[in-house]
Amino acid sequence: MTAQESTITPGMFITLEGIEGAGKSSAIPVLAAFCEAQGLSVERTREPGGGHLGEALRSIFLNPELALDVEAELLLLYAGRRDHWLNRIQPALTDGKIVLCDRYEDSTYAYQSGGRGFPQERIAELARWAGITRAPDLTFWFDVSPELGAARIRARRPDRLEQEQTPFFTKARAVFAQRRAAEPQRIIRIDASAPMDQVHAALEQALAPRLRKHFS
Amino acid sequence: MTAQESTITPGMFITLEGIEGAGKSSAIPVLAAFCEAQGLSVERTREPGGGHLGEALRSIFLNPELALDVEAELLLLYAGRRDHWLNRIQPALTDGKIVLCDRYEDSTYAYQSGGRGFPQERIAELARWAGITRAPDLTFWFDVSPELGAARIRARRPDRLEQEQTPFFTKARAVFAQRRAAEPQRIIRIDASAPMDQVHAALEQALAPRLRKHFS
Repeated sequence: MTAQESTITPGMFITLEGIEGAGKSSAIPVLAAFCEAQGLSVERTREPGGGHLGEALRSIFLNPELALDVEAELLLLYAGRRDHWLNRIQPALTDGKIVLCDRYEDSTYAYQSGGRGFPQERIAELARWAGITRAPDLTFWFDVSPELGAARIRARRPDRLEQEQTPFFTKARAVFAQRRAAEPQRIIRIDASAPMDQVHAALEQALAPRLRKHFS
Repeated sequence: MTAQESTITPGMFITLEGIEGAGKSSAIPVLAAFCEAQGLSVERTREPGGGHLGEALRSIFLNPELALDVEAELLLLYAGRRDHWLNRIQPALTDGKIVLCDRYEDSTYAYQSGGRGFPQERIAELARWAGITRAPDLTFWFDVSPELGAARIRARRPDRLEQEQTPFFTKARAVFAQRRAAEPQRIIRIDASAPMDQVHAALEQALAPRLRKHFS
């Protein structure tokens, strides 16, 4: 059995990606409202988390006390992602919903490979093992400089990932840029350094024609 | 980096394997006392569990409410095993200790492949990915019929694995037998249907020459 049995789905799988402080989280309700205003049904979710297993793992994954090496972290991530895909994302897509997911596969490459220097091919190998082979239909990459991202999150309680320093996020950002260059049809870059209302307007402008095309 | 950097260790890695109700758990204190009486230092541990991550995962892994598919279960198992190996088993071996571990790699093949029908090669692939390549120095396979094992555990509260039925344990037992046939030097079969004092005497008799050889 594979996780990808139904690859043709009537719904639309949209992911939001970017380094910390890029403004993804505040954009999700805006995108959801935009879709719902057009009569479309939306499922909001996130990684790590999303599925039952993922939520149970999230506290482990973000615990600064538990020193996990990259391999252990990736094994947990893909256990949660498999459960999330099989039991939440895929069923929602089958139901014709728009899935809005805060972080997914691109973040794994950006953080574990870009940020921590783990080989991309080893990540791809594990993703294949876990049956995670269906790419999102559309990905918004919220691009912001690490300095501006850090300034935005300074007031928030830092969790483990947010404790990483600027060079880490600079490398993560470079991987997002590489992936966008490789898949320009899937990944749309949003200038996330702009004021929030401009960012949200840019998202709606980019999303509208994609929705029309997908649901026509 | 690999998990197996130091493969030559002064300690001795001993695992106890077998289906439920085989009597492994009650044998561990006996084996430990036997080793300690000879001036050897013992580290007792178990899977799933053992490391910090493994213990955190154990409640997830044994939760009957959380329906995990085999792939998700294996990803969690190997995350925990990697942490257990790197942060507990390997350091204890480096310190010259005897590690007594209740279940390890053989159980994964017996349960997930034998019991659930998951391909052995897929397990091996994940084990390699996770850097779990160092076999135990010695494995005691507590062999008992599924019927006798079930009779012994009937009084205990069944957790998820113990809710499995006889055909599952019959298939798991067959995989233990296959593995013993393939590695007769490593895996010693103990007739666990015998009365407990006879089982414990058989363990000590088998262990004594191995200890002399290893620590001479």
